[in-house]
Amino acid sequence: MAFKPLHDRVLVRRVESDDKTAGGVIIPDSAKEKPQEGVVVAVGAGARDDDGDRIAPDVKEGDHVLFGKWSGTEVTIDGEDLLIMKETDILGVL
Amino acid sequence: MAFKPLHDRVLVRRVESDDKTAGGVIIPDSAKEKPQEGVVVAVGAGARDDDGDRIAPDVKEGDHVLFGKWSGTEVTIDGEDLLIMKETDILGVL
Amino acid sequence: MAFKPLHDRVLVRRVESDDKTAGGVIIPDSAKEKPQEGVVVAVGAGARDDDGDRIAPDVKEGDHVLFGKWSGTEVTIDGEDLLIMKETDILGVL
Amino acid sequence: MAFKPLHDRVLVRRVESDDKTAGGVIIPDSAKEKPQEGVVVAVGAGARDDDGDRIAPDVKEGDHVLFGKWSGTEVTIDGEDLLIMKETDILGVL
Amino acid sequence: MAFKPLHDRVLVRRVESDDKTAGGVIIPDSAKEKPQEGVVVAVGAGARDDDGDRIAPDVKEGDHVLFGKWSGTEVTIDGEDLLIMKETDILGVL
Amino acid sequence: MAFKPLHDRVLVRRVESDDKTAGGVIIPDSAKEKPQEGVVVAVGAGARDDDGDRIAPDVKEGDHVLFGKWSGTEVTIDGEDLLIMKETDILGVL
Amino acid sequence: MAFKPLHDRVLVRRVESDDKTAGGVIIPDSAKEKPQEGVVVAVGAGARDDDGDRIAPDVKEGDHVLFGKWSGTEVTIDGEDLLIMKETDILGVL
Repeated sequence: MAFKPLHDRVLVRRVESDDKTAGGVIIPDSAKEKPQEGVVVAVGAGARDDDGDRIAPDVKEGDHVLFGKWSGTEVTIDGEDLLIMKETDILGVL
Repeated sequence: MAFKPLHDRVLVRRVESDDKTAGGVIIPDSAKEKPQEGVVVAVGAGARDDDGDRIAPDVKEGDHVLFGKWSGTEVTIDGEDLLIMKETDILGVL
Repeated sequence: MAFKPLHDRVLVRRVESDDKTAGGVIIPDSAKEKPQEGVVVAVGAGARDDDGDRIAPDVKEGDHVLFGKWSGTEVTIDGEDLLIMKETDILGVL
Repeated sequence: MAFKPLHDRVLVRRVESDDKTAGGVIIPDSAKEKPQEGVVVAVGAGARDDDGDRIAPDVKEGDHVLFGKWSGTEVTIDGEDLLIMKETDILGVL
Repeated sequence: MAFKPLHDRVLVRRVESDDKTAGGVIIPDSAKEKPQEGVVVAVGAGARDDDGDRIAPDVKEGDHVLFGKWSGTEVTIDGEDLLIMKETDILGVL
Repeated sequence: MAFKPLHDRVLVRRVESDDKTAGGVIIPDSAKEKPQEGVVVAVGAGARDDDGDRIAPDVKEGDHVLFGKWSGTEVTIDGEDLLIMKETDILGVL
Repeated sequence: MAFKPLHDRVLVRRVESDDKTAGGVIIPDSAKEKPQEGVVVAVGAGARDDDGDRIAPDVKEGDHVLFGKWSGTEVTIDGEDLLIMKETDILGVL
């Protein structure tokens, strides 16, 4: 992808969680919560510390990540709906 | 567990407190307060100080911790309900 | 352009996104959302870190950028409507 | 006590102030204000300065301290009601 | 002018924008927006960084600047209405 | 006094201002404003700068000080009503 | 004056502006705005930077200054109404 996030931002593609409940009942699409899982598509060069030096990001392209339900800004790049968020919005790497 | 919290985040599994009152009366499940005890399941690599250096976390996997009743974000990892919180949300180690 | 943004500010010219919907229907101008794409027209010398040293900007003149819908201040320079925003308001470079 | 407060937190046991008024009248328990005195039971390893170095706490176990009426979080450890507060919530040492 | 702004403040004289609309219609004075252009009349010695050292200002006396419509404090010096603002309120130099 | 304020806190004893108006009229006690003058009774060891080093306080025991009417927390130590405030709440030394 | 402001505070005596309007009409006292001009009566030793070092104040005793209409705290010292303000509340030196 040609898009390069700025600073400590990360571009994430949402990944739909499994559609079935534990009992195998399929949840209709409108009833599902918005997913909180995603795959990192692009990573910025990193924020800067107080001396102006770059802080290397802790996630990399392809990482499977968990993020808060309300994190990030929705963007459409090449017709695909993606999320741009700060690296600190990412809770952890699966 | 494959999940790695980011930065100064910690993954915690809630531990139910003792179900009986001092007089031995069993409290029905719905009447109990949400527990404030937990076990650390995974620890991030640590936040960074103003020079961009890592600050080593003060808790480690397996620590029995106390945390504020409203701390952290609930997540479901491998079907288990866990909490991701900042290390500063942890009040202390039992 | 003679205008030089101060510090970590960036001067951006909005770029209209494609006017047709996926099905080829042309959306009348008043119904379109304000665009979130732009081209960098001028870049400030950069903010200063805690030691007072300049932090070189990450965008440059001509960069095609994405920015939040409500970012920046509208200005009219030489009769043209432009936006002045902080570099941190820019989400990334296309 | 096995509990170790994290960072710059301090574990405090409330100390009841004298129950009699100046004239020797005993105030019934429900009429008394919550006490503002306590004894330090356990002290964390200290917060960290901007370089990530520990700042040694100014109070130690056994110190008789004064703290704001609304400071700290109530916790029950080994059946005893105690308070966990930040060291900065402690006004001074008696 | 004898007035010396303090720290990172800048003294600005408002400059009226052109009074005619694109079609040459003259807008009566009361209908015009407050101008956002000005000329720098005096510049402070600069703010101080975290080490207490001065940060040299980026604007100088005589600079033609653009500033937010609500920036600055109105002052009357030698009978003239001027604006004192922080250098960061200045968007850029024309 | 045995009380030692923590960090950059200062213990202050209020000093009643003169009870007479300029014309010699005695103001009844209930009509007087709360005094803003006091004497420093005890001084903490000082706050810490970003490197964790102590900043020596600028006031000392016995200093006659002026402080904002709403500054500080009221405490009773050895039966005496005193005020604990931050050194920055002290406006100056008389 | 014996009063010494603390840290980066400055003691200022208000100076009444000229009582006549441009047309020579005398404005009755109650209709005048509170003045924004003053003379510096005493200056603190200065705030401290992040390393705990003093930052020398930019104003000195006797300076004729301009300050925001709502700046500072009113104090009465030796029967005289004065203002204590932070040096940053001073807009500039006339």
